[in-house]
Amino acid sequence: MQQPASGAQDSALFTDLYELTMAQAYVADGVTGTADFEVFFRRLGPRRGYVLAGGLETALDWLLGFRLSTDELEYLGSLERFTDRFLEWLADARFTGDVDAVPEGTAVFENEPLLRIRAPLPFAQLLETRMINALHYESLVMTKAARIVDAAGGRTVVDFGARRAHGVDAATHAARASWIAGCAGTSNMVAGQRFGLPVVGTMAHSYVEAFRDELTAFRTFVSHYPRTTLLVDTYDTLAGVRNVIRLAGELGEAFTVQAIRIDSGDVGTLAAHARTMLDAAGLEAVQIMVSGGLDESRIATLVDDGAPIDGFGVGTDLVVSRDLPSLDFAYKLVTYDGEPRLKGSTGKATLPGAKQVFRRWDGDRMTGDTIGGAREGRDGESLLQPVVRQGRRVVACEPLDTTRERARAQRSALPDRLRLPAPGEPGYPVTVSHELEAEAERLLARHRQVQ
Amino acid sequence: MQQPASGAQDSALFTDLYELTMAQAYVADGVTGTADFEVFFRRLGPRRGYVLAGGLETALDWLLGFRLSTDELEYLGSLERFTDRFLEWLADARFTGDVDAVPEGTAVFENEPLLRIRAPLPFAQLLETRMINALHYESLVMTKAARIVDAAGGRTVVDFGARRAHGVDAATHAARASWIAGCAGTSNMVAGQRFGLPVVGTMAHSYVEAFRDELTAFRTFVSHYPRTTLLVDTYDTLAGVRNVIRLAGELGEAFTVQAIRIDSGDVGTLAAHARTMLDAAGLEAVQIMVSGGLDESRIATLVDDGAPIDGFGVGTDLVVSRDLPSLDFAYKLVTYDGEPRLKGSTGKATLPGAKQVFRRWDGDRMTGDTIGGAREGRDGESLLQPVVRQGRRVVACEPLDTTRERARAQRSALPDRLRLPAPGEPGYPVTVSHELEAEAERLLARHRQVQ
Repeated sequence: MQQPASGAQDSALFTDLYELTMAQAYVADGVTGTADFEVFFRRLGPRRGYVLAGGLETALDWLLGFRLSTDELEYLGSLERFTDRFLEWLADARFTGDVDAVPEGTAVFENEPLLRIRAPLPFAQLLETRMINALHYESLVMTKAARIVDAAGGRTVVDFGARRAHGVDAATHAARASWIAGCAGTSNMVAGQRFGLPVVGTMAHSYVEAFRDELTAFRTFVSHYPRTTLLVDTYDTLAGVRNVIRLAGELGEAFTVQAIRIDSGDVGTLAAHARTMLDAAGLEAVQIMVSGGLDESRIATLVDDGAPIDGFGVGTDLVVSRDLPSLDFAYKLVTYDGEPRLKGSTGKATLPGAKQVFRRWDGDRMTGDTIGGAREGRDGESLLQPVVRQGRRVVACEPLDTTRERARAQRSALPDRLRLPAPGEPGYPVTVSHELEAEAERLLARHRQVQ
Repeated sequence: MQQPASGAQDSALFTDLYELTMAQAYVADGVTGTADFEVFFRRLGPRRGYVLAGGLETALDWLLGFRLSTDELEYLGSLERFTDRFLEWLADARFTGDVDAVPEGTAVFENEPLLRIRAPLPFAQLLETRMINALHYESLVMTKAARIVDAAGGRTVVDFGARRAHGVDAATHAARASWIAGCAGTSNMVAGQRFGLPVVGTMAHSYVEAFRDELTAFRTFVSHYPRTTLLVDTYDTLAGVRNVIRLAGELGEAFTVQAIRIDSGDVGTLAAHARTMLDAAGLEAVQIMVSGGLDESRIATLVDDGAPIDGFGVGTDLVVSRDLPSLDFAYKLVTYDGEPRLKGSTGKATLPGAKQVFRRWDGDRMTGDTIGGAREGRDGESLLQPVVRQGRRVVACEPLDTTRERARAQRSALPDRLRLPAPGEPGYPVTVSHELEAEAERLLARHRQVQ
């Protein structure tokens, strides 16, 4: 369950041009003091009660392997925008700074830092694009997957999203994030190999279509995979169920098919009919899986309606987080050379200085967070923990089982209303410490004066 | 402007488990006749009037480089689901079949095949996941980008989406697709290097924050980049514009700043104020760029309102295609062993047999398409063209400029109403040939009889 360091997604060149133009100006002017940058998001939006922090391992692998290749340096040289001095600086650039982060699978809320990086300003600036990119997508999908798993109320959920994710990396990281959030497996073989995840899946409509008739297809497939799941809706769902029952009659004791899958139509009603038919044929042990256009709202409705469904295969909605395909993750300068910094832009103001999130607990329930200065000595759990010091990990990459258990425990500690498909009010209580608010006011007043 | 063959996105293992279980059953039973599979989408949905076909080069690179590595074969062996015979078959599996495809940048519509693959059934089955994945995302983003470029009405549009795309591959392929659709450049350096795209970008808020005051930051940045764009909204947008004017006063003739950028607030009103202030100061040549949460609807409103904006930086909405983060791309078996096949599932029925799209033109406007059998001798342009024969390309990878020009010409040939942010009725006329409809009816009737 390790992340290998290879492929385009690991290119240190993955940054925006302006990070390089700014870094060059900093290096030229000797503006190379230490900076702190923090990653956070501003708004949950109406459809999310919490976010699970994801993507830390992806971000760390990239960061600790940061090194521009000769090809990449030559490309930059060819643009005629960069000086030899800066290209030499870039050639030697490695991450030797510090990282503090919230462990993956932790519930986080608006304006709470998930990650803080401390490094010389020009280098820290270059990291923005990749740090946001890595944390954003895996947090987005881990959160979506957790909502779907919650809606399924203990029934199995598996990831079928590989084909509609936004690229291969997206599919593969979505599988990892989904597993942490409680999915039972993925259909994506690259994710299975890379992260050691359970792989799942049986047959597609094309298999049935390749045969002259459905019963022949079922008979043949079961001869290879006696404990398989049979897909029954290629032509007519209930006729497909009758073919399963017919096959059970043919095979007698040798019939060990585990489940049928319904992938189209009104799956709740079809599942109820199929259940009745299977039970009447003595096939109570055959489970019913459904798939096709499912999301947490649809699944919650099916569960509430008592549809006799044992498991859900979820694809597109999961891996593109269809109702919320992005969150406004940002990476902002919070200190330079020991001094707090902020941004005052309309609707996008930031809190100055290195921060910490202090979480209060009542038994096994989380009751509220305070965002304060990193050095404020507050009660409660400190969410941000040291992860890298002077370019070296001080916390090992944890097994995915540990992360998955954290995600489970965090969700069960949340107010129940926040886990619903349409989260209830009030939201989770997050306050900003008086000290931090006073500091922000002081800095904004100073900037107004200078203008 | 080539696609290098390296990285995780090129792994031949990128497939769903069920493709492998089905392939193993086919190989074991000698069901290895030739199959045709087609990629298409079923529904445009209410927010799209057309789709531009994308992702072909990505798909071909993967397909023609298909080869499972020793590591991957060992992983598959470790799962104890696959026979030695099948693993040997997989070790030797290479693509030696045919591909017909619609050229990238071509406008396509519901149920029209974008790509057809002909290969032995077990091999063709393995390709499903990657073929959909590659074509889906690039078509999605190319279409979204085209809508944004159209809304901008000739003003510059650039891609700033790298940080919020779903991974690095997504960001990089989004940049390529956006450029084909008419964007002027991207901020993403990996895309710049890989595809030879123009790279754009200047400064972020953090640069301004790193200095004691905004004017000092502007002065310093301009000393390095005299023709830069200055970001004016770090603290207060109009105060930022006043600092630009102050700097122009200090520098006199040496002031060659090209533009200002506004990234927050009511950008239309702020741009109008900024324009008035700049003009009053004799800075008519300084352009105004805006960014921050823009999509085609917002841009169309700004343009309609006559906001004095010269260019738009678009990020998240573009690369995640926020209003439509997926299309229902599918890869379906249409013939096996020379016989047409179809799927009859509720709401997901397919058209049988290898197909062609025949497009009618009236001068330089496209007037309607007919989906017919590949061998129907119909008038009009045939959209699907031979691309690969017996595993070898018969059409070279075209320069991106050519693809970009095709995308432009295709859009200008569409009914104008289909290019609006909210596409007007009626949709583009697509009909199915009588021959094809009769064939579908004949096959469905036969399956009903067999059931």
